[in-house]
Amino acid sequence: MRNIKLTIEYDGRRYLGWQRLGDSDKTIQGKIEGVLKQILEEDEIEIIGSGRTDAGAHARGQVANFKTENEMSLAKMTELLNRYLPRDIIAKKVEEVPDRFHARYNAKAKKYSYYVWDNMIPSAFEGFHSFYYPEDLDMEKMQQACQKLIGTHDFIGFSSLKKSKKSTVRTIDEISIDREGDLLHFTFVGEGFLYNMVRIMMGTILEIGAGKLPLSAIDEVFAKKVRADAGMTVPAQGLFLDEVYYN
Amino acid sequence: MRNIKLTIEYDGRRYLGWQRLGDSDKTIQGKIEGVLKQILEEDEIEIIGSGRTDAGAHARGQVANFKTENEMSLAKMTELLNRYLPRDIIAKKVEEVPDRFHARYNAKAKKYSYYVWDNMIPSAFEGFHSFYYPEDLDMEKMQQACQKLIGTHDFIGFSSLKKSKKSTVRTIDEISIDREGDLLHFTFVGEGFLYNMVRIMMGTILEIGAGKLPLSAIDEVFAKKVRADAGMTVPAQGLFLDEVYYN
Repeated sequence: MRNIKLTIEYDGRRYLGWQRLGDSDKTIQGKIEGVLKQILEEDEIEIIGSGRTDAGAHARGQVANFKTENEMSLAKMTELLNRYLPRDIIAKKVEEVPDRFHARYNAKAKKYSYYVWDNMIPSAFEGFHSFYYPEDLDMEKMQQACQKLIGTHDFIGFSSLKKSKKSTVRTIDEISIDREGDLLHFTFVGEGFLYNMVRIMMGTILEIGAGKLPLSAIDEVFAKKVRADAGMTVPAQGLFLDEVYYN
Repeated sequence: MRNIKLTIEYDGRRYLGWQRLGDSDKTIQGKIEGVLKQILEEDEIEIIGSGRTDAGAHARGQVANFKTENEMSLAKMTELLNRYLPRDIIAKKVEEVPDRFHARYNAKAKKYSYYVWDNMIPSAFEGFHSFYYPEDLDMEKMQQACQKLIGTHDFIGFSSLKKSKKSTVRTIDEISIDREGDLLHFTFVGEGFLYNMVRIMMGTILEIGAGKLPLSAIDEVFAKKVRADAGMTVPAQGLFLDEVYYN
């Protein structure tokens, strides 16, 4: 059996997220599996993603792997994938990897971007790829919020998990903010993220920047672990999975 | 009666083009008229665009005007337009102009952009905003083709018009090419363009760049005025109306 690693880019606006739901072909996973079955002439192919992405969220570098006995060349596989996939899902790289490679278990860290459009006049082109939040944002306060979030903490209060038997302690290595015209570009790098964690951290940073939450709200959420003390869950449309890191 | 000038941005991928078709609300004009009637409480409003744009083509600066007796402030009108328009159609500017201003008759020149994606691996994000044409393009030949097209010529052979009672002589002031990563960005500025003229000039420049047409094809089309001697009509999805110039 060959083990094939895919690096995938997708515009999530038309899809219900990464994870296949029954036979739905409104998911990224479902679309890719459908095309792989067809071009590799296999009855069943299951691809393993590095993790889920939400309905409407995007990826520049989602990673997945699958097993096949088909001997098709990697170049041919790339060509056929991109010929038959819809044009908002692209196989950027197709590689053969050792049998033990597992896209989810072996992922060491991930990088996400989140985009905020803060001009009063919205954008026709960025509307499905950013969050329209035309507030007067205090950059310095947002930088301070990022510094408070970086490091190793129990992030359960910054997630949509009710309870968890597994550890909810995570380490965030980097959060940065860049302005690109009317877009604010936030980058998050960490070893792992809980359910909705980037979107809730992001909502908290924004509400602190807009003066709707005090900076101390972050300490509060770490101390009391109460989701309601954090900021809003910002919409998925501004979220991009940029890169998955492996050893 | 007040005369209101709109500067409009739209992502055309979901629409049948600018011009209203009966009661269809799959056109940009139809969408905007529908919202204006609602917010200004008028039975009939007709907006006059600077010109049509094709199904699937985009605009960063389409201009239109309409008459109304409603005394609503321009700020309020902007706010309500952007609240009720779909998020891929944006009113960027709303101004009051002299009664004689006519968005079509007074337009002195237009600027268009066309984007070509020439990397073998397509883009999930640019797929509806560029033409995927992964050929080995000779930049120098394309520059020469642009130089040949600039100036005053009878462009009927570069249009989809069969015949025309009106003059088909036009002046092109500028055609330029810039590379932006994997995108080639072509800019066209001229006093006016015939039906499909940008898309056919663009197809001709690309086929010359790819070695599928000789540079002399352009002289041929000017001399013999035969559409079939020019290049393909490239798809509308790569076309943007950037700006309309008035005195």
